[in-house]
Amino acid sequence: MKMDNSPARGTRDLLPATVAVRDHVLATITEVYHRFGYQRIETPALEGIERLSGGQGGENEKLIYRVLRRGLDETVAAGTEVKDLVDLGLRYDLTVPLTRFYGNNHAALPTPFRSFQFGPVWRAERPQKGRYRQFNQCDIDMIGEESVLAEVELIEATTEALAAAGLGGTTVRVSDRRFLSALARAADLPEEAWTGLFITLDKLDKIGWDGVRAELPERGLDTARIDRLQETIVGLRGVDPAKLGDTLADTVPGLPDEVVADLAQTADALAALAGTRPVSWEFDPTLVRGMGYYTGQIFEITHPASSGSVAGGGRYDRLVGRSLGKDVPACGFSIGFERIVDLIDAGPRTAAVAVLYEADVPLTRVTSLARQLRAEGTAVSPVRRRGKFGAQLGRLQEWGFTSFAHLRADTGDTPELRALGDG
Amino acid sequence: MKMDNSPARGTRDLLPATVAVRDHVLATITEVYHRFGYQRIETPALEGIERLSGGQGGENEKLIYRVLRRGLDETVAAGTEVKDLVDLGLRYDLTVPLTRFYGNNHAALPTPFRSFQFGPVWRAERPQKGRYRQFNQCDIDMIGEESVLAEVELIEATTEALAAAGLGGTTVRVSDRRFLSALARAADLPEEAWTGLFITLDKLDKIGWDGVRAELPERGLDTARIDRLQETIVGLRGVDPAKLGDTLADTVPGLPDEVVADLAQTADALAALAGTRPVSWEFDPTLVRGMGYYTGQIFEITHPASSGSVAGGGRYDRLVGRSLGKDVPACGFSIGFERIVDLIDAGPRTAAVAVLYEADVPLTRVTSLARQLRAEGTAVSPVRRRGKFGAQLGRLQEWGFTSFAHLRADTGDTPELRALGDG
Repeated sequence: MKMDNSPARGTRDLLPATVAVRDHVLATITEVYHRFGYQRIETPALEGIERLSGGQGGENEKLIYRVLRRGLDETVAAGTEVKDLVDLGLRYDLTVPLTRFYGNNHAALPTPFRSFQFGPVWRAERPQKGRYRQFNQCDIDMIGEESVLAEVELIEATTEALAAAGLGGTTVRVSDRRFLSALARAADLPEEAWTGLFITLDKLDKIGWDGVRAELPERGLDTARIDRLQETIVGLRGVDPAKLGDTLADTVPGLPDEVVADLAQTADALAALAGTRPVSWEFDPTLVRGMGYYTGQIFEITHPASSGSVAGGGRYDRLVGRSLGKDVPACGFSIGFERIVDLIDAGPRTAAVAVLYEADVPLTRVTSLARQLRAEGTAVSPVRRRGKFGAQLGRLQEWGFTSFAHLRADTGDTPELRALGDG
Repeated sequence: MKMDNSPARGTRDLLPATVAVRDHVLATITEVYHRFGYQRIETPALEGIERLSGGQGGENEKLIYRVLRRGLDETVAAGTEVKDLVDLGLRYDLTVPLTRFYGNNHAALPTPFRSFQFGPVWRAERPQKGRYRQFNQCDIDMIGEESVLAEVELIEATTEALAAAGLGGTTVRVSDRRFLSALARAADLPEEAWTGLFITLDKLDKIGWDGVRAELPERGLDTARIDRLQETIVGLRGVDPAKLGDTLADTVPGLPDEVVADLAQTADALAALAGTRPVSWEFDPTLVRGMGYYTGQIFEITHPASSGSVAGGGRYDRLVGRSLGKDVPACGFSIGFERIVDLIDAGPRTAAVAVLYEADVPLTRVTSLARQLRAEGTAVSPVRRRGKFGAQLGRLQEWGFTSFAHLRADTGDTPELRALGDG
């Protein structure tokens, strides 16, 4: 009997060499986040289906793996609706569980609470190259901080974590949902048409101004307003951060003073940071980001080696309130872990010794030599001598061993360590 | 609006202090297993429901969280069976996924393959104190090694990992399924009655010989055979490991020579090990272990601080074959991670500095001081000054901070670090 041993559709097995790279990248990021005081928490993979379907998840709510209630009859009664059979679902992100976690545990948590989460989420997406139905998210969030200290620290910590993991030379792009709203309001668009406008603006980098202008009439804008919008955006792209506040105040009518002040303060703090570390920062007036729950600044980080962003986040001051019953300011940043591990080199091979023993060597000699070599901190594994010697050495090297000791029954000497390949 | 923010029934949130202990224990175990050459792999949480229900999981198969197919109609057609709505389930252990993984990836893996797994599993058990519906398993397995090198190495690596994590002074109890079979056969029991006998023998430590003897007649044994069984078992308990082979050969009629040799060789190797490290070993003729897939030696590790075992495992030479189509010898050992983290102290508190800043201090001064302190490798977090000074220091200490620097706008000096509490 031979079965199909593929993992479930859209999921994957991770082999030792892949896990080693992922663990190394995660350890590096964790070390940086710990230094910024972010503390790791864990929430269960399963959440109540009502919470997962409550509207916080946007399009992701269509992709939930739903879990059957326990103890159901084997045959479903006529007219039963599928939703009546379900009480739990697998989380599709780490933000919905975080807001529940904060609601459940806030009395025991610091203010502000600096949270670090790393763990799997599940989305029943159409399988496609490089996208998986189970993947890991890597989030830091600060809950309870209303000032832009949150934005600035999240950006600093995340660029530093990426640099430590080997992705220096990133660019941070910042915008603000309140700025986008002011832009739409200044264009005299009714609120229900804003999302459509933002979706079009978000595509500027892909379709250019010709493409954007072609879409805008159906979004409800006439040529005069399109011209004005384009002029505003062009004037803001690439603006000197030191002049961002003044430029915003001059060119976006109706933008609240506090938004101007927040963005100017963020620009100042990141400029000060740039003095000590290479952080490249820009205001990007067409950065939108998908989730509807953002209420203030939004950000993405790009890296020359990746076409998409390597991290993204923003402020969501009204999401925690849905769990807690009162609003608590919050801001988060998520590293695209699955994307960055593909960009990062494995690092140097670690030493691994094979104790290559002939079948007639007593077991206690094998384990004793292994123990002796292991005491020096090296990874040591006994492997039985089989087949052609050269071929076996080739396999050992292929399997990641860097050296070996050939243990034979006909000599009582401790064999010397011999390098494999270039090792 | 206020929602119930509890995690799903039977699951739990893990707070930072708890996660810190767990991460520390895991890192310690991982370091030891790496030194023995065990390589971490990952498999998806979801597996095909047929595989999970194939009989390998024993009683656990009744506890599967079943996942609905995607794209179902909202209303279930009359006469639909629940199983027709389901295609996936959440794994209830790491052994079923490992055998699938090996079947899927064996061509790229070493022989023997030393696997290390750590990850969540799910069982819809009746909630009870200290038992959770999502919990982590921590397994090493050696696939492709037919000799007792596997048993000996797994025992050595696991006792060493436990000792490194703070659980020295463990006792390893070893038995063998083939010994148990010989015992049942020698008592003239038909094969279908063996499991009942083993279940009774397994209770010896709890119910004593009086209790065991009272149950055995309904298991099909008369007084003469009960006397003989008791005599054999009593003679084997606490036998000097050096004499185990001879004693077994003398007292268990029909026990195959290879079983005697395997157990004697394991005893020798562990005795040699005991010379260099304190490993306490005993043959336990009434150790049974639950899973039906064991084919050879089985083992458990006990520790004075825990009433239950802290680790367990055994040889399962015919399980991989169900996935691969041909038998491959295999042996595994699982640390009861959830049990041991409750037994282990947190270790020393790590330094954490609060930059306690007054509201009127410019943000760049706050982030710049934090950055300066962080450069020395310490965890540093800005926290706004609020309320009564002494009360806030108390909260900082409660939240895990060990010292603070009070940053004020009325002086440009860099504030000194001051210890919190005994810190």
